[in-house]
Amino acid sequence: MDIKVDCSKAFVDTSLLKEKAEECMEILWKGEYPYTGWVSYPLGITDKESELSLLIERIKSVASVIQNKCRLFIVIGIGGSYLGARAAYEALGKREGYPELLFAGNNLSTTYHKEILSQLYEKDTCICVISKSGTTTESSIAFSILKEALIEKYGENEAYKRIFAVTDEDEGILLGECKLKGYTRFSIPKDIGGRYSVLTPVGLLPLAVSGFHIEELLLGAYECAISPLWDSNLTDYAITRKLLWDKGKKIEIFESYEPSFMCFSEWLKQLFGESEGKEGKGLFPASLSFTADLHSMGQYLQEGNQIFFETIMDLKSAKDDIWVNEEGSPFHGKTMNEVNRAAVSGVMNAHEKVGVPQVKIDIPFMEERILGQLFYFFMMTCGISGLMLSVNPFDQPGVEAYKEEMRKNLKG
Amino acid sequence: MDIKVDCSKAFVDTSLLKEKAEECMEILWKGEYPYTGWVSYPLGITDKESELSLLIERIKSVASVIQNKCRLFIVIGIGGSYLGARAAYEALGKREGYPELLFAGNNLSTTYHKEILSQLYEKDTCICVISKSGTTTESSIAFSILKEALIEKYGENEAYKRIFAVTDEDEGILLGECKLKGYTRFSIPKDIGGRYSVLTPVGLLPLAVSGFHIEELLLGAYECAISPLWDSNLTDYAITRKLLWDKGKKIEIFESYEPSFMCFSEWLKQLFGESEGKEGKGLFPASLSFTADLHSMGQYLQEGNQIFFETIMDLKSAKDDIWVNEEGSPFHGKTMNEVNRAAVSGVMNAHEKVGVPQVKIDIPFMEERILGQLFYFFMMTCGISGLMLSVNPFDQPGVEAYKEEMRKNLKG
Repeated sequence: MDIKVDCSKAFVDTSLLKEKAEECMEILWKGEYPYTGWVSYPLGITDKESELSLLIERIKSVASVIQNKCRLFIVIGIGGSYLGARAAYEALGKREGYPELLFAGNNLSTTYHKEILSQLYEKDTCICVISKSGTTTESSIAFSILKEALIEKYGENEAYKRIFAVTDEDEGILLGECKLKGYTRFSIPKDIGGRYSVLTPVGLLPLAVSGFHIEELLLGAYECAISPLWDSNLTDYAITRKLLWDKGKKIEIFESYEPSFMCFSEWLKQLFGESEGKEGKGLFPASLSFTADLHSMGQYLQEGNQIFFETIMDLKSAKDDIWVNEEGSPFHGKTMNEVNRAAVSGVMNAHEKVGVPQVKIDIPFMEERILGQLFYFFMMTCGISGLMLSVNPFDQPGVEAYKEEMRKNLKG
Repeated sequence: MDIKVDCSKAFVDTSLLKEKAEECMEILWKGEYPYTGWVSYPLGITDKESELSLLIERIKSVASVIQNKCRLFIVIGIGGSYLGARAAYEALGKREGYPELLFAGNNLSTTYHKEILSQLYEKDTCICVISKSGTTTESSIAFSILKEALIEKYGENEAYKRIFAVTDEDEGILLGECKLKGYTRFSIPKDIGGRYSVLTPVGLLPLAVSGFHIEELLLGAYECAISPLWDSNLTDYAITRKLLWDKGKKIEIFESYEPSFMCFSEWLKQLFGESEGKEGKGLFPASLSFTADLHSMGQYLQEGNQIFFETIMDLKSAKDDIWVNEEGSPFHGKTMNEVNRAAVSGVMNAHEKVGVPQVKIDIPFMEERILGQLFYFFMMTCGISGLMLSVNPFDQPGVEAYKEEMRKNLKG
C-alpha cells in the first residue's frame, strides 16, 4: 500500500473499538448486507480470464472506438453516476491527446446546459448517459436535449452510433431505448449502489475514453482490499470517526491542498453523507480547499465553535514544480510546492495547539493505482463507519421525499 | 429593493430580538467599530462630484486602457482580495468581447499555476495584484512568478505597463514596488477589511475590466443601504440566525440552484465564518449547489443530524430557457427552468415536513444592480449578526497562528 493513514493527531484510543470494527469489516466481506458487491469486486483483476478482466478489455475496446470518433465526450449523470468519474478526471488531470470530458445532467441550470450545447456544436462529440433506470429527472432532461442536438448535427443514424449508455442489465426505460436504437451499452452491477460504483463501468467507461489506465485503478483497489497489514489502517480511521462523534464532534471537514482534489471531496461528501445521514445521525461532511480557504475559514477553524474535526488528504509531490527566482522575494530559491508543504504542517501544528482533532491521509503521488487505493479505502471505511453507527450504510430511504413533492409541483 | 427575504419558514419569532437588532444596526451606522467604512461607502454614488463617483470614473478609464491591451486579465489575490470579484464574475457570466478573468495566487498548487502560466504565454495578458501589504505568501509567490513570465514575454518596460496594483495608500512593500516600477495603482480604503471590500477597487477594477457596469453594483448597494422599508428585512435575517443558533442549530447551509452561484457561496462562507467564528462561537458556514448536491447530500438533509438550517438563494429567472422537445419524454413541452423551479419548492416542502428551518432570498433576475443589493444585504446582516452574538465581526485574531507555524517550517 502506498497511501498511509495517520490518526495519531486525533487523540482518541482506537483500541477501544478494535474488535467491533473488525466484526463490521467481516460482515461486509461476508456480504450480509445487500449492495455490498463492491467489496470483492476488484479481486478478479489479477486473473486475466476473470469476468472483471474481460469487462475491462471490452471497455477499453469501446473506448478506443469513441476516441477515434470525437474530441469531446459528454457524460450525463448525477450523484453517484458522475461524481467518481469526475473526481478521478480532475485529480489525475486531463490527458493530452484524448477526448475532453464534460459532465451534463447534474443540475437543472439553463445557463450551464447552454454552454454544454455550444461545445457540442463546436467539437466532434459522443455522449454517454449513465442512469440505472433512466427516469432520473436531471439526466433524463439533459439526455433529451443533447440527443436532439446530436441528431440535428449528425443525422439520426450517426447520432445513435455516438450515444453510449451505462444502465441496468434487465429493466428500465433507458435499457428499452438502448435496445430500440442500438446504443452500445454497459451494465451497472445489481449489487452495487450509486455512491459505491466508481470502479464499475459507471466510472470506468468515461475514464478509459479520456485515456486513463483503468486496470491500474482496479489494481490499486485490489491492493487495498487484500492487504492484511492494511486492515488496521481501515479500522483505525473508522474507529476514530466513531469516537470523535461520541465526543461531540458533529462535522468532518475533508481538506486538501490541491484544487484538483475538490471534486474528490464532493465524492466523499456523497459517500459519507448518504451512507451515514439517517435516523438523526451522521457526521455532517464539509470540504475545504487549502490554502485558498485558510484565508476565508482559517479564523473559524482556529477560534470558532469546535464541533468539527479535519481529515486531510496530503498529496506529497507536485508533478513539476515552480521556482521563485525573483531576487529580494522572501521566497527566493524556494519552490511553490515547498511552501505548500510548509503550509500543511504549519496548519496542523496551529490546529493541534487549539485541540482540533486531525486525521491525515498521506498520498505519495497521484496516479491511477494510488487513486484506486483511495477510492477503495474510503468505501470500506465508510461501510465500517456506518455499521458502527448502527445505520445501514447502503440504503438511502430519504431521497424520495423531495422528488415526490417536485412531481406534485410539475403536475399542478 | 428587488431582492426579498422570507424568514417565514424558519419558524422563529423575530419580534423577540427586534430592538436589539435595530440597536446593532445603529451602532454600525454610527461607525463605533473600526473597519466599518463599508457601511456608508455606497452613499456617494448618487452625487457625480463625490469621491466615490470620481473613483469610479478613474477605474473605468484605467479599465478601458487594460481592455485595449489584453484578452486575459489575471487577478492575483486570496481571501477577501479575490472572492468578491470572482463571485460577481461567475454570477453575472463572462461578457463577450471583454478580457477573460483568471484568478491566481489563491493557493500554492503548482499544477494550478502551471496552467495559468501557459495561458499567460498564449494570450495577450495584463495582471492585477491585490494585497494590502504585499506580504501575503500566496499572492507574493504568484506575483513573483507571473511577473517573471510577463517580463520574459514583453520585456521589462512593457511588462510594468501591464501590471496593475490595488494596495494600501501609505505603506507596505507592494506600495514601494509600485512607486519604484511605476505600476498604475488603486488604494484599498483603510477603514474597510478584506471580506467587506468587494465594492471598493478590490472588486471594482477586475469587474470593470471584464465589462461590467460597476456603478450599477454601487447603486444596488446604495438602494439597500438607504431603504427604510428594507430595515426589517435586514434585521429579520440576522435575528433569525441568532434565534436558530440559540435553539441549537450550529450549521448554516447556503444553497442555490445555479452553479454560477457557487463562488458567491464561498464569499458568504468567508464573510460569516471569519466575522463570527471566534470565542468558540459562530454558525459553521457550509454551501451546497442544487440540484447536483441533492443527489449527494439530499439523504443527509432529510434524515441526518438536524443541527443545520438552510439559506436559499432563489434566482427566479434564467437568461434564455431550454425546451424539452422529445416526444415521449415525461418532461415534453416543459422548460429546464420550469423543472428547476419545481425542484426549489419541492425541496422546501419536503424539508419543511421534517422541520428543517429555511430562509429564502428571492432574486428576481441577475444583473449588476441586484448583485450590489445582495452584497450589501449580506454584509450588513453579517455585521448585525456578529454584534448580536457578542463578537467583533470586523477583526480576525486567529488568522496569524498557522502563518507563524508555517514561517517556522520555512526557516527550519
